[in-house]
Amino acid sequence: DFPSPGYGPLEKGLKLTEELLQEFSRHPKIKIAVSPHTLYTCSPETIKKCIKLSERYSAPLHIHLAENSEEIAEIRQRHGKHPVELLSELGGVNERLLAVHCVKIGDKELEILYRGGARVISCPESNLKLGSGVAPLPKMLSAGICVALGTDGPASNNDLDLLSEMRTASLIHKGLAEDPAIISAKDVFAMATENGALALHFPDTGKLLPGYRADLAVLDLKKENLQPDYNPLALLVYSAKAGQVSDVMVDGEFIMRNHQILTVDENLIIEKIHEIKEQILAVLKNQKKM
Amino acid sequence: DFPSPGYGPLEKGLKLTEELLQEFSRHPKIKIAVSPHTLYTCSPETIKKCIKLSERYSAPLHIHLAENSEEIAEIRQRHGKHPVELLSELGGVNERLLAVHCVKIGDKELEILYRGGARVISCPESNLKLGSGVAPLPKMLSAGICVALGTDGPASNNDLDLLSEMRTASLIHKGLAEDPAIISAKDVFAMATENGALALHFPDTGKLLPGYRADLAVLDLKKENLQPDYNPLALLVYSAKAGQVSDVMVDGEFIMRNHQILTVDENLIIEKIHEIKEQILAVLKNQKKM
Repeated sequence: DFPSPGYGPLEKGLKLTEELLQEFSRHPKIKIAVSPHTLYTCSPETIKKCIKLSERYSAPLHIHLAENSEEIAEIRQRHGKHPVELLSELGGVNERLLAVHCVKIGDKELEILYRGGARVISCPESNLKLGSGVAPLPKMLSAGICVALGTDGPASNNDLDLLSEMRTASLIHKGLAEDPAIISAKDVFAMATENGALALHFPDTGKLLPGYRADLAVLDLKKENLQPDYNPLALLVYSAKAGQVSDVMVDGEFIMRNHQILTVDENLIIEKIHEIKEQILAVLKNQKKM
Repeated sequence: DFPSPGYGPLEKGLKLTEELLQEFSRHPKIKIAVSPHTLYTCSPETIKKCIKLSERYSAPLHIHLAENSEEIAEIRQRHGKHPVELLSELGGVNERLLAVHCVKIGDKELEILYRGGARVISCPESNLKLGSGVAPLPKMLSAGICVALGTDGPASNNDLDLLSEMRTASLIHKGLAEDPAIISAKDVFAMATENGALALHFPDTGKLLPGYRADLAVLDLKKENLQPDYNPLALLVYSAKAGQVSDVMVDGEFIMRNHQILTVDENLIIEKIHEIKEQILAVLKNQKKM
């Protein structure tokens, strides 16, 4: 409920979102979501407007929800309830909801999300790095909730590596539950693939089946750390490294071949990052002087 | 206290260890440790013999200690005490002790290890994968114990990647304590370098200082995931990938240059692994038939 550096005042944000929803309504690969940041930075009125917008365009509603203890405490103080309860009362818990994080969540809230058909995006490494905690993934899965894996952004994840995210999601729950079988390689692979497609409302992606889009990543299986290969899925989740992906195909088109990205100039991007870094350092230096 | 496929009956194991201790007593790079497996697979008598041997040769005593709840329960049932207490009473807690894991350990046991000057080797990813739990690293560090990082073996770790181990060690404690500052990149870097050297009794390794051995690993900083670089230590712990190490020098000699290992033939090793895999599969197939 305050101006954003991206779009200026609040009304402009809602207007921009609606324009994007119209522009990309029939785009085969781009899906626009309505994304109010959180329940503690947006008023219930703003959230309601967002929910209406997502309803009108059948678009996903993307919101950071129940990420950490501070959020739970703040929403409880302001509204006397858990963020999931509040969002549900505002009409936001349904099949369009992409609830990101859901770390601080109990059986009651899981039940609300399950009944509404909401999808959860879990970002385990970001939750760890920021000291938010650990989302109850095994509970979510056994409650029948569609949970997808995300990396969150570079500020709280650093490497944006989905293979590493699968590995962390798996290892942490085995360790915390003291049960190596509580979450399987198959579970986390599904979270990274088909559940992601379901969460983002792409019904024809996320699986290798006739009629589905050809979204492929090729791993170089000759690497030392991928020997021996008894179980391809376990190999992928527990041993493979992102740098060993040699080719990537999106909807039938290669965007990376033999470790070379074909659609963008990597060196140019790295140069640009260096420029921005120097600008940031200059600003910080000036601030120190003042 | 039972025959091993490696050396046959128990007495032969002790004899072999003593022979190795004599053979490598003045080797510059190889250090032999006396390593009884655990307190639940070795009798107190065997442990005592091992402790004496390590004392006689000033050699490290390497033992898996307090790894999981089953071990705690079993030792308590047999001996009425915690494994650390038992080992201490047997005379095994001193500066030579390399106590591996120490997951299930409280303030009392940490005090025993600290007073004895023991070193702990923590293998966070193995502890997670096996469902053992999470070792209290921040507590160990603030208790002043020398903790080093290990990967454990491929059966419980898969990737044997020390960079990933640093990242996991750091992330998990930030998340569990809900405090992103509870363990720093500097802490985990020290665990992976100088503490490792201290633990293994190599007084002139683990730091880049005059008089120390030149043990170096070179990272290719031009990779996308290593941009931008504001803090090299944070970059190394949170973003760098093992596959981006291009050169490795051990004691002044390169053993890897430009991603090529110079001391062994990688393809030959991969071939050998495939042969062994086929042998194992053949044995399993025969067992199924029976």
